Amino acid sequence: MNTIGRLYTLTSFGESHGEALGGVIDGCPAGIPLSEEEIQHELNRRRPGQSSVTTSRTEEDRVEILSGIFEGVTTGSPIGFIVRNKDQRSRDYDAIKDLFRPSHADYTMQEKYGVRDYRGGGRSSAREHVVRVVGGAVARQVLKRLGVSIYGYTSQVGPIALKESYHEFNLEETENNVVRCPDSVVAREMELFIRKVQEEHDSVGGVVSCVIRGVPVGVGEPVFDRFQARLGYYMMGINAAKGFEYGEGFHAASMRGSEHNDTFVMENGQVRTLANHAGGILGGITSGEDIYFRVAFKPVATIGREQQTVNRFGEEVTFVAQGRHDSCVVPRAVPVVEAMAAMLVLDMMLEAGKIPTRV
Amino acid sequence: MNTIGRLYTLTSFGESHGEALGGVIDGCPAGIPLSEEEIQHELNRRRPGQSSVTTSRTEEDRVEILSGIFEGVTTGSPIGFIVRNKDQRSRDYDAIKDLFRPSHADYTMQEKYGVRDYRGGGRSSAREHVVRVVGGAVARQVLKRLGVSIYGYTSQVGPIALKESYHEFNLEETENNVVRCPDSVVAREMELFIRKVQEEHDSVGGVVSCVIRGVPVGVGEPVFDRFQARLGYYMMGINAAKGFEYGEGFHAASMRGSEHNDTFVMENGQVRTLANHAGGILGGITSGEDIYFRVAFKPVATIGREQQTVNRFGEEVTFVAQGRHDSCVVPRAVPVVEAMAAMLVLDMMLEAGKIPTRV
Amino acid sequence: MNTIGRLYTLTSFGESHGEALGGVIDGCPAGIPLSEEEIQHELNRRRPGQSSVTTSRTEEDRVEILSGIFEGVTTGSPIGFIVRNKDQRSRDYDAIKDLFRPSHADYTMQEKYGVRDYRGGGRSSAREHVVRVVGGAVARQVLKRLGVSIYGYTSQVGPIALKESYHEFNLEETENNVVRCPDSVVAREMELFIRKVQEEHDSVGGVVSCVIRGVPVGVGEPVFDRFQARLGYYMMGINAAKGFEYGEGFHAASMRGSEHNDTFVMENGQVRTLANHAGGILGGITSGEDIYFRVAFKPVATIGREQQTVNRFGEEVTFVAQGRHDSCVVPRAVPVVEAMAAMLVLDMMLEAGKIPTRV
Amino acid sequence: MNTIGRLYTLTSFGESHGEALGGVIDGCPAGIPLSEEEIQHELNRRRPGQSSVTTSRTEEDRVEILSGIFEGVTTGSPIGFIVRNKDQRSRDYDAIKDLFRPSHADYTMQEKYGVRDYRGGGRSSAREHVVRVVGGAVARQVLKRLGVSIYGYTSQVGPIALKESYHEFNLEETENNVVRCPDSVVAREMELFIRKVQEEHDSVGGVVSCVIRGVPVGVGEPVFDRFQARLGYYMMGINAAKGFEYGEGFHAASMRGSEHNDTFVMENGQVRTLANHAGGILGGITSGEDIYFRVAFKPVATIGREQQTVNRFGEEVTFVAQGRHDSCVVPRAVPVVEAMAAMLVLDMMLEAGKIPTRV
Repeated sequence: MNTIGRLYTLTSFGESHGEALGGVIDGCPAGIPLSEEEIQHELNRRRPGQSSVTTSRTEEDRVEILSGIFEGVTTGSPIGFIVRNKDQRSRDYDAIKDLFRPSHADYTMQEKYGVRDYRGGGRSSAREHVVRVVGGAVARQVLKRLGVSIYGYTSQVGPIALKESYHEFNLEETENNVVRCPDSVVAREMELFIRKVQEEHDSVGGVVSCVIRGVPVGVGEPVFDRFQARLGYYMMGINAAKGFEYGEGFHAASMRGSEHNDTFVMENGQVRTLANHAGGILGGITSGEDIYFRVAFKPVATIGREQQTVNRFGEEVTFVAQGRHDSCVVPRAVPVVEAMAAMLVLDMMLEAGKIPTRV
Repeated sequence: MNTIGRLYTLTSFGESHGEALGGVIDGCPAGIPLSEEEIQHELNRRRPGQSSVTTSRTEEDRVEILSGIFEGVTTGSPIGFIVRNKDQRSRDYDAIKDLFRPSHADYTMQEKYGVRDYRGGGRSSAREHVVRVVGGAVARQVLKRLGVSIYGYTSQVGPIALKESYHEFNLEETENNVVRCPDSVVAREMELFIRKVQEEHDSVGGVVSCVIRGVPVGVGEPVFDRFQARLGYYMMGINAAKGFEYGEGFHAASMRGSEHNDTFVMENGQVRTLANHAGGILGGITSGEDIYFRVAFKPVATIGREQQTVNRFGEEVTFVAQGRHDSCVVPRAVPVVEAMAAMLVLDMMLEAGKIPTRV
Repeated sequence: MNTIGRLYTLTSFGESHGEALGGVIDGCPAGIPLSEEEIQHELNRRRPGQSSVTTSRTEEDRVEILSGIFEGVTTGSPIGFIVRNKDQRSRDYDAIKDLFRPSHADYTMQEKYGVRDYRGGGRSSAREHVVRVVGGAVARQVLKRLGVSIYGYTSQVGPIALKESYHEFNLEETENNVVRCPDSVVAREMELFIRKVQEEHDSVGGVVSCVIRGVPVGVGEPVFDRFQARLGYYMMGINAAKGFEYGEGFHAASMRGSEHNDTFVMENGQVRTLANHAGGILGGITSGEDIYFRVAFKPVATIGREQQTVNRFGEEVTFVAQGRHDSCVVPRAVPVVEAMAAMLVLDMMLEAGKIPTRV
Repeated sequence: MNTIGRLYTLTSFGESHGEALGGVIDGCPAGIPLSEEEIQHELNRRRPGQSSVTTSRTEEDRVEILSGIFEGVTTGSPIGFIVRNKDQRSRDYDAIKDLFRPSHADYTMQEKYGVRDYRGGGRSSAREHVVRVVGGAVARQVLKRLGVSIYGYTSQVGPIALKESYHEFNLEETENNVVRCPDSVVAREMELFIRKVQEEHDSVGGVVSCVIRGVPVGVGEPVFDRFQARLGYYMMGINAAKGFEYGEGFHAASMRGSEHNDTFVMENGQVRTLANHAGGILGGITSGEDIYFRVAFKPVATIGREQQTVNRFGEEVTFVAQGRHDSCVVPRAVPVVEAMAAMLVLDMMLEAGKIPTRV
């Protein structure tokens, strides 16, 4: 299924080296002025070749919106869009045509479908993320009008991790460095580390943290459709994601109840909690406090070293990846995490009846 | 939405202290001999009062199957079932009627719905898990015929954690101790630790690990419906779950690609990987290797200590939980994790066309 | 799939002669006082044995609500309910066990599932309608508070048909006769006709007409999810339904545009139409005018005459139905049509955001 | 919701005079050679300006496939496509900008969304059918390999109707005349009648009949998801459709059971029925016999006569439609009915497990 969401949905299509990628956004409220520039801005944040730590391939990701907007405003009709691939036929894929690259989807795609677009990973390429970034950029513009903000940032690259919680940082600083880390000193360390890994023809994993502010009380449901369950689905659907946690996450496993429980207090006539170990969600339903969560990413599978593998004829072969690739996806994963979060929040706010008919 | 699944679905209803909980299983293949005893056995594994480390409340959870089985065999029609609550009217809830218990769903449920069944947490109680256990027990019987096995176990309780990977243990040993840990020495430590916490009128979190064996290559999809994304949704929908990871999980964030990549090899004519850092999933699609994952649980919110909180009139009050509760949910969460995993695997195998028409 | 609806859903289970039928209503708004008596009243309207023209089998259809209501009011949690079958084991089905009754589902069920609960048609029996009647009775109580009313009635039995449009009748009169026809003279003719058919050991078809009043402008969508498309799905899902039309229906095929077009006029500051050939729906979206539609039913397949057929061993055999059955389902189909309409209207009003958060 | 289907889905976008219409086909089995020419052929059958009885507007509907096909074969990935609108900005819509055309969706769209693309009806235009025709053309190519054929034809135009059942005609003749009626004599009458209506600046309705051959036994479900219920949804979602019936349809209402029941017989070791009053569906499940059904269409709302109406300022105004329009949509609706039927049959065959993994 290539559709995500219940009421605000994104249907995605396209392969890494096909004619175009694109999608259909359905369920966007009517009457919202929509800026194509802001959408393009988000695509540019994800684009390869934007900095010294990302691949120097240049993909020009130009969004073309085909429907659903009339005189600059959403009409309630589905928003169709495409992003054309450039020069998709020019490269030579003969070397990897029949080969199963280690820790890529080549083998499982071949087995599942019996046929495979091997060019650049085809449908399983992270290039598909451009579609999600567009879906998220539209959702974000709606959310902004509702007072909801989403802040993603790089909190770990290999062994280098931020020690402090998000409260200690100015999350508006994130875009000021190439790794998208709100602490400029740690950011510099991360950058140097990624370069070193790159020089060693290797890759490295990391963590994206994210904070969502302004979601009202009452979004999410108490049984299956907990806010965190649906958020987990959205995050674990990002390429290379290996783990998801919210609030205290895995750390909660070693805590006591007396430590972890959040005391309710009254603050300006509002029910609030003193701490927010819960991460803004109680019993699957948002509490009005900040929602915060983390997503772990594995190291990029494509490395510039010789690797052993097999081909689809069952022969053992060696393989060295050609071309230039990211050594760490985490900085470019930040806008993808934000986009997915934006779509999920809008979808669930719609479900919870938290969107006024006219935004 | 109180339905989970696409092709094998479970619709759940019922509150902690209502007349009955129950559900409808839809999409179970026809022609499967189904044992009510095995279903009851799974319910008994989850039941409170089963051991020294679980609450001494005794809930007799007797499943009554109402449809979908004829002469002992599934008919392809939906399987309706109920589990009656005993003595649901007898307790006195006046003390917590208007109160928001810290780190419970009382506040968010009240805000969301404007009305609330306050008896024992109502719909947001973990008692709802009995419904899932039945749904999972049915799925498991189908999976067993397909050669799929699911092994959940307690891998961490507070600070006490298994050090070794699942390969080092005999997972059939899990049921031999009250905490459901496959290492009997660590199990004993965990048990003592839980008792200590209990005596301190406190609670503690933990981790359930789980291994799924026998899933064929090709289950899951490359974009949104990755196996791990849907698994994450199922796991994060369990009460008290705070984190989910599979394969190397959060540890992958600090690994290098050269370390994490799984080398493909041929083994008896089969494509296999030397290691399985990936956790049995490549590009969202199962690879035929073992699937393994971990779910973090927070400490139980109900503790026998005085806590500050507020009531629904905006007054700050103090509160001490009455009655007896688990100090650590993890041992009783093991069958719930297994049940959710079983439902997900069956659902996705059906989607992938991996179930023969006549099982 | 045994679930119907998007936001107001009904999941159904149960067989004609199993332990119980039942269902789960999900998505009912919270805070609605719900009368169990009104639900029971609707079940009684559908019950066999209620009059001279319905089968004299007596089914006592007693609904038991198990969840989702607290202190008489809906809580937003799913409403589980069951209706037990009485004496379901007592009859002898050996005569039809292996036989495919003409124009019943015996053959197709056997072929589809490879196994079949042959007792009284099992899952394919119209007895399943009790579940829908409960789902509809709950929806109706919500709709009543929103000013929406639904009037079904018998407009044709065999060759005897009402000539006038629904405007000519007092639809509150429908329940005053056993055939549920608002014209007492025609009703009497229908009743006599059904008795005659009964005496001839035969059965006869008919038509249920239905009018929905009070649905606001704006419900339904312009492409796939037209109000009439979803209504058609709900109606064609009723046992024995063979056709569906709304507004001028099949008659529109022979009309001219100049005749059929509805002129817009202003009436008390409201946009209205002079006539309502459209049947209250323009471009798939409700216009605020009355919605009216008709559902054709085939004659009951069970007749008291000898029929030729085959059994599942491929042998040609003769067969005479035992027991007492309706000769015309139409009077008892009226509450079923209303129930389905009620569920659909509530579902689509929820989708269109036409239900205030607190009803 | 702009997605139709469960396993074989079509997501549609685009307005009558926007940049482009298009869609995403998801769930198409992998490994199917797909002919773009056949898709284009179906689009040409629906295209305006193709004959003397259709509008002389010429829309060049050129499909551009963007993904999901590799080396001429489906890959199992979603098939994205667009059909660009030509010269969509050139016309002057000032005359109808604020006006509610009688029996069009202008009023209900405006009320529902508060904003409206008034150019040519925007999203509610029948131009959207091009998207469905593409979705159907792909489904048809898959079905052809499975031995399923679909034959739509015009069976009524205004008062002129075919008297005989489909058995009396060679359905391969349908394309030999401009009205798509398999009886060349009646076809000529229909053609003359449409021209006459055209000269009178009026429009007329009609009926499309359709036969589906080759669907195996066992497709469809016994309760909500009856084959006919889902088919009814697909058909009633076509612009201008007012009624749907299958088998004996509304005629069944006046039949006796002894007449309508289909006698089972053995034929070459197969269970067959002597007649097929049922229309190929028993208890919601296909029986292997021909499936036949009819869809009634209202007369086109756009007529070349002066009509009274109101505008969105609540003023009563007169209106004469400009431009050239069809006087009868029925001939051009034939490929749309077939396309919708093809998508539904493929979707339900997938659900019923009737598609081999490798087609």
